[in-house]
Amino acid sequence: MTPLSSLSSTPRSTLTRKKDRGATDRQALYDVLDEALICHFGLVLGGSPVVLPTGYGRYGDTLYLHGSTGAGNLRAAAEGIDVCVTVTLVDGIVYARSVNNHSMNYRSAVVHGRARLVDDRDEKMRGLHVITDHLAPGSWEHARAVNAKEFASVVVLALDLAEASVKIRAGEPSDEPEDLANDDVWAGVVPVQTTFGAPVPASYLAPGSPLPAHITGRD
Amino acid sequence: MTPLSSLSSTPRSTLTRKKDRGATDRQALYDVLDEALICHFGLVLGGSPVVLPTGYGRYGDTLYLHGSTGAGNLRAAAEGIDVCVTVTLVDGIVYARSVNNHSMNYRSAVVHGRARLVDDRDEKMRGLHVITDHLAPGSWEHARAVNAKEFASVVVLALDLAEASVKIRAGEPSDEPEDLANDDVWAGVVPVQTTFGAPVPASYLAPGSPLPAHITGRD
Repeated sequence: MTPLSSLSSTPRSTLTRKKDRGATDRQALYDVLDEALICHFGLVLGGSPVVLPTGYGRYGDTLYLHGSTGAGNLRAAAEGIDVCVTVTLVDGIVYARSVNNHSMNYRSAVVHGRARLVDDRDEKMRGLHVITDHLAPGSWEHARAVNAKEFASVVVLALDLAEASVKIRAGEPSDEPEDLANDDVWAGVVPVQTTFGAPVPASYLAPGSPLPAHITGRD
Repeated sequence: MTPLSSLSSTPRSTLTRKKDRGATDRQALYDVLDEALICHFGLVLGGSPVVLPTGYGRYGDTLYLHGSTGAGNLRAAAEGIDVCVTVTLVDGIVYARSVNNHSMNYRSAVVHGRARLVDDRDEKMRGLHVITDHLAPGSWEHARAVNAKEFASVVVLALDLAEASVKIRAGEPSDEPEDLANDDVWAGVVPVQTTFGAPVPASYLAPGSPLPAHITGRD
């Protein structure tokens, strides 16, 4: 029984490639990675853990992350040290009849590996493309392209999705047999959703500028 | 200029206690911690970083986390190793006129420290109370209390908020001077919100059971 929304005990684990479960697992991994907006990127600096929120993008079985060349954490990761990228979607608050069985519905993916600095020009551009597509679908085609100076000032890291695990909790509460008949206590799930609000134009946008379809579609 | 939603370069840093900014910083820290639903908990296991999503609660300047006594990660953290707890709220997708200046609006808190295993019975109960209040306000009073067996099977960790930093990005895009007049490209922010949906009763809830006010209020 998992108390409340406890620390999960996800081990470092490789997704099995077995025919019966492999495809399902891998699709579940893709689904979590593709739906979430940010990841939490963990690395070890000076012996201590550091966890930072960051954007990312996926291309097949490669996760791309990026940052400024001035970011020390990113430079450290680019040197090939172990990293952990965790992506979590909260789907609901699980109200049980006992405090102890309260929980959360969620989907999370944990990826372990060594990040690789992307040197190749084409791959680096592809990394930026998928990171942009992830954050703002359609913007790669709509906005001004990356120029040479901007391209040089960005570091792109690649992380293979070979060593990854997915954890999912869904559905109704798990209550103890002794609590099941206690109808004085409400039991169920309050769904949690991430929603996009109405776009807010920048102050310098010309009045009457039309909202492009790739942004309207997100509303 | 920060490219897209880049890896932030938050250093390990202690919130200043300076009169002019300290109060503001601390309140900003509380605000982020109190609003988010989950944190990402980082620790080092076998030399590698591990980042796990988990619930938490705040009591003054102490963060409480908990988990099952069977969770290896938690046992490791309870031994007094360095941990990093990061909490992130995504507030918006920032659409700029250049791909490079796309970004996110967000608020994040990063807390570094050594987690302390909570042995004292009263403090342990307080930890469970604030974790429950954080996840499901009102449930501590409404649902069945933790019994002795459940209490014994839970590990509670405390983390001091002494070494913490907050990063916030808000407002409109930052565009290059050369792009400001390019009205062919939309610029602005698409807000991102976390919302609660209509409560879904458990299958075993008696038909017609009223929805308690502490849950209705969350809808």
